[in-house]
Amino acid sequence: MNDLAVVLLSGGLDSATCLYTAREAGFKITAVSFDYGQRHRNELMAAANLAQIAGAEHVILPVDLRRIGGSALTSATAVPKGGDGIGKENNVPVTYVPVRNLIFLSLAYAVAETREARAIYIGINAVDYSGYPDCRPDFIASFRETAALASKAGREGRTPEIRTPLVNLSKAQIAREAMRLAVPVALTWTCYDPQTKGGFFVPCENCDACILRSRGFAEAGLALSKEEIFGAPIRSA
Amino acid sequence: MNDLAVVLLSGGLDSATCLYTAREAGFKITAVSFDYGQRHRNELMAAANLAQIAGAEHVILPVDLRRIGGSALTSATAVPKGGDGIGKENNVPVTYVPVRNLIFLSLAYAVAETREARAIYIGINAVDYSGYPDCRPDFIASFRETAALASKAGREGRTPEIRTPLVNLSKAQIAREAMRLAVPVALTWTCYDPQTKGGFFVPCENCDACILRSRGFAEAGLALSKEEIFGAPIRSA
Repeated sequence: MNDLAVVLLSGGLDSATCLYTAREAGFKITAVSFDYGQRHRNELMAAANLAQIAGAEHVILPVDLRRIGGSALTSATAVPKGGDGIGKENNVPVTYVPVRNLIFLSLAYAVAETREARAIYIGINAVDYSGYPDCRPDFIASFRETAALASKAGREGRTPEIRTPLVNLSKAQIAREAMRLAVPVALTWTCYDPQTKGGFFVPCENCDACILRSRGFAEAGLALSKEEIFGAPIRSA
Repeated sequence: MNDLAVVLLSGGLDSATCLYTAREAGFKITAVSFDYGQRHRNELMAAANLAQIAGAEHVILPVDLRRIGGSALTSATAVPKGGDGIGKENNVPVTYVPVRNLIFLSLAYAVAETREARAIYIGINAVDYSGYPDCRPDFIASFRETAALASKAGREGRTPEIRTPLVNLSKAQIAREAMRLAVPVALTWTCYDPQTKGGFFVPCENCDACILRSRGFAEAGLALSKEEIFGAPIRSA
């Protein structure tokens, strides 16, 4: 075990806040991102920028989930707009990617085990979230046990700790925490449905992810620029 | 839910026996194999042949675990020979790939969820095995719960059943079961350390996987050809 933490870094506001939380805790960091065929693949550029600025190593793991399908994020199915489905009980939206966080956490766990990392940070959030089952604390608690049983690390009693610092925060609280930690929020990317405009990817401002993010900044009472609220455009070529 | 089963098919004797077990149970089958940077990548050719002969759909998912490392199967570390480590208590060998079955089961679960499969078959074995923690029944039991919590299928009460028909069998019993089911055993590939010889991959006959397999056939009292005992050569070009 050493002073390393593995951070799952999508490039969005939540995972970027996690990255800075882990850094504040004193860890050296390996950030792990997934190139999974997501329609908002430009988030990987945001992740690379964030890792570089934070002084973290950055590993991008390819795992093509388009071959599995079943989600609007990895197929031609349209992404919902207008936010009508947000917060509806038992509504798993079409942007759900089958057991995505189970797959991503398993891969991150392998990275952590190989490097003998002390902790894994994942920015899941069960308050202002999109209704994904794999963002809830009961899933994480169960994953801890399963991964310990599956791993050499677990059999030897030196499992990496799985930390979910944002799980019980509202989006407004996450927005405030991001500002406190001086996360460069304009460099994060949240939008599920990037538009291309004049050689740049631009947030749509109207998918569930954009709406939840902008509501968070509004409820936090933060008067920010549009680029901070939705994320700045990213060069597409 | 329909009459589909997802079978994890590495191309080895155990997973091939699982494939035929699922077929005997009356399922249509989607066989899933993983191109993970394994040194015995030729097992994917065996898997493709087996799926075709069994009339199963075959999906190969690429997930490059060489980028994670930590195993003799995905790096230049030598594979142990002579079988000295087999069966030693608490000995996890260097061929252990960090949480491999957790990663593979998670991906197979996503395939099963997307296609609404009724069952997932995995040929893990906790009797004559190499000492991998992710081949034991307590790991599978825990995975069932975690995957149900992570998935839309689980939230809706229609989880695919995870079946491990070989988990309590000895290698000799698996060998007999393979013969009963008419598995084309010469077409399976088990060896961790394929040798190249005259345009063919040939089993080394001396890694833990080769040794366990040949012992199984010997203990079963089956007088077979060398190609059936170790697997036949596979064309390398």
